[in-house]
Amino acid sequence: MSGFILHPRLEVDTAFVADWALCRLLAMKDARYPWLVLVPRRSGAVEIFDLDEAGRAVLVEETARASRGLKALSGASKMNVGALGNLVPQLHIHVVARNPGDAAWPGPVWGQGRAQPYADDALAAWTARLREDL
Amino acid sequence: MSGFILHPRLEVDTAFVADWALCRLLAMKDARYPWLVLVPRRSGAVEIFDLDEAGRAVLVEETARASRGLKALSGASKMNVGALGNLVPQLHIHVVARNPGDAAWPGPVWGQGRAQPYADDALAAWTARLREDL
Repeated sequence: MSGFILHPRLEVDTAFVADWALCRLLAMKDARYPWLVLVPRRSGAVEIFDLDEAGRAVLVEETARASRGLKALSGASKMNVGALGNLVPQLHIHVVARNPGDAAWPGPVWGQGRAQPYADDALAAWTARLREDL
Repeated sequence: MSGFILHPRLEVDTAFVADWALCRLLAMKDARYPWLVLVPRRSGAVEIFDLDEAGRAVLVEETARASRGLKALSGASKMNVGALGNLVPQLHIHVVARNPGDAAWPGPVWGQGRAQPYADDALAAWTARLREDL
């Protein structure tokens, strides 16, 4: 895992939550949705199949952990999980809590409208809560 | 896996390719993008974490297999993988081959424009090719 550097766009758009066994867990700075991003700390990984089988098994477990935890924490009705990377090639998995009537429902959140920033205090409280509960 | 019934919306929107160990592999009837859908044959599964750990390990392997194979087959520059389910709750994983300049680039494909049907012959040829190559 040496040489891992978070993509500058993710560095700007997210806040650090925790380093799990494989992934760096990040919170998207967008208060419209409870929104996590998992980034495997494997330099050069772009697609899920760039990880080896053992890495993929951890990836899906960490994705399930984030998704189950965020659903419980947020009370959301549906989780959206996506690995797109059309703009940021570094492999990263979005885990987004969705509800009927949210800003993009029933469409996907990506590329829809503008991020709504958290107040600094609210962001710190949110990442602390994620660190504790997930 | 008894009692598995494909959601009627997926039944209409996709064509059968193959049954893998866990998932039914389907081809989306939309010629704008090389587009697969994997549906775990587990009745009642909605979220990835509704599968058990063994099921999730197979799910990520079948997702990687579909994604690697479709990228090679299509020559696409990026694969998009997503489990959304805002409209169709039955757990299903989209695997979509993307290229700069395609109909939705760089945004996500979901909810964008209208599906472009394949001619019947072309759809049969496409699913046969998928069956052989993936």
